[in-house]
Amino acid sequence: MYRPEIKVFDCTIRDGGLMNNWGFSKAMVKEVFHGLARAGVDYVELGYRADKKQFSPDESGPWRFSDEEDLREVAYECGTKVSVMCDVGRTDYDTILPASESIVKMYRVAAYAKDVDKAIHLGNHAKQAGYEVCINIMAVSNVMEPVIDEALDQLAETNFDAVYLVDSFGYFYSEQIHFLADKYLSRLKGKEVGIHCHNNQQLAFANTVEGIIRGINWLDGSIYGMGRAAGNCPTELLLGFLKNPRYDLRPVLELIEKYFVDLHRKLNWGYEMPYVITGILNAHPRTALQYMKELSQGVPERSLVDFYNEHYESEVLE
Amino acid sequence: MYRPEIKVFDCTIRDGGLMNNWGFSKAMVKEVFHGLARAGVDYVELGYRADKKQFSPDESGPWRFSDEEDLREVAYECGTKVSVMCDVGRTDYDTILPASESIVKMYRVAAYAKDVDKAIHLGNHAKQAGYEVCINIMAVSNVMEPVIDEALDQLAETNFDAVYLVDSFGYFYSEQIHFLADKYLSRLKGKEVGIHCHNNQQLAFANTVEGIIRGINWLDGSIYGMGRAAGNCPTELLLGFLKNPRYDLRPVLELIEKYFVDLHRKLNWGYEMPYVITGILNAHPRTALQYMKELSQGVPERSLVDFYNEHYESEVLE
Repeated sequence: MYRPEIKVFDCTIRDGGLMNNWGFSKAMVKEVFHGLARAGVDYVELGYRADKKQFSPDESGPWRFSDEEDLREVAYECGTKVSVMCDVGRTDYDTILPASESIVKMYRVAAYAKDVDKAIHLGNHAKQAGYEVCINIMAVSNVMEPVIDEALDQLAETNFDAVYLVDSFGYFYSEQIHFLADKYLSRLKGKEVGIHCHNNQQLAFANTVEGIIRGINWLDGSIYGMGRAAGNCPTELLLGFLKNPRYDLRPVLELIEKYFVDLHRKLNWGYEMPYVITGILNAHPRTALQYMKELSQGVPERSLVDFYNEHYESEVLE
Repeated sequence: MYRPEIKVFDCTIRDGGLMNNWGFSKAMVKEVFHGLARAGVDYVELGYRADKKQFSPDESGPWRFSDEEDLREVAYECGTKVSVMCDVGRTDYDTILPASESIVKMYRVAAYAKDVDKAIHLGNHAKQAGYEVCINIMAVSNVMEPVIDEALDQLAETNFDAVYLVDSFGYFYSEQIHFLADKYLSRLKGKEVGIHCHNNQQLAFANTVEGIIRGINWLDGSIYGMGRAAGNCPTELLLGFLKNPRYDLRPVLELIEKYFVDLHRKLNWGYEMPYVITGILNAHPRTALQYMKELSQGVPERSLVDFYNEHYESEVLE
């Protein structure tokens, strides 16, 4: 029996864009949006809203900036809502139009727990402009518990729509997900909680299901798992799992066949050993991405064991 | 804190052999055994013991038959024990030497639940020859509960060492694993229970961990997940998870780097959409393997959606 409160949130273009510098063609993004709409997905995150004073539009594809006119070329008003992500400290507030003038329905603010005040400030700005707002607290596997608790207590007092539990490093096992899901749900006093997992240890889908079991209703996925480094929970697995008759797996299968199998072959997100190692050791994937780049340029001087030892030792010493 | 009863059981050569017709070189299998021994893995399953009257040795590699002299070339007596798998109905009893004359320590009998009497017969034969014995009841996701219950009750009365919970189709979610693990542990009256998962929905590792949480102690994995179709729980993830200081991930990283990344590129076990679809729909992977073969020979006439619909409809009609 399905839980009607559950929402599927696809972030293929936004998180996947971290692997191709947001270089998706408009034709493709249009097909992705339309396909996900036919699949019954509730939200589609089409990109970041990065500040053009900090990041040059000449150096990244359009989905790093998600200009209103670009979004309108690929999406249309329907039951599937458009979301855009903002990073704290990288957002020009003036680019957030009044909601009545925008196709965007949701702004998601990504922030570290220590920056929760900045996240609330930015979230309030978007909320006052008329948008749904949610806050994604990143990388909580490396944050001390009182800091998480304080951030959640502050967020409980806002009028934002949801707060996300984010496993940025793909480190958590089911027991940690249970512990944190219970914490988020109880401290946030009835606010919706979402879950965004990375797949370093092939646990993104499993942990998302564990989140559902504990009461989390907003579920992030990306098509074929496309996302930074090890990628995310595959949207197709989520749709295969959920029982709500409004979801249909078939349009996502079509997109995978047409685009994502080939893209994956080129970009190599997913199950790669450097990502596995940073996941196991609770480390940021940036060194693994660098190591993968070295690998793609020929045999690297460091072996996998060297890479493992570097991280293991830095863990011990820090 | 670790549970000393836990045993890691690597079946790379046996289950992975289903993807290359057991065509691993002896040099490689020797390195695999030695590496897994250094990693502290408890059992290494080096192949099947197929009946040469039924399967010609000219048509498959040596690990389909696991002759004593071949095993002795690659393995040595140490804390890491050699296992061989026998299929009910495909085993020549006469090839099971007295244990004192063999390097094999464990025979694992694979059988469907309906064949439990045959499995017990074969298991008794191996037990009387002096071996550890365990029974792997395959494909229980398609078996009615009273049939499973009866098989377990019969196995509880044997002197075998363990019985495995096997998710042959990669269909189970954590809730089913909990349900079946509890059933196996209670009906088998204190006998050890093992878990062997397939990875169609990226749940093999997660479900193995759920098995551990419920009290399962014998854990199957394979290096880089190599196994039939979607493959198995990756041994490297298991070793990264387990806390027992006798396990060391590094020798497995070396094997992956030297052999398995390239092998995977050639053989494509793992996360492929046809396997995902049969997993979601609780179907045998044979049609997905056939579809993958067609794909490798060029664009297939059937789309992924066609493949999905064929299975979905046959499920409804059967």
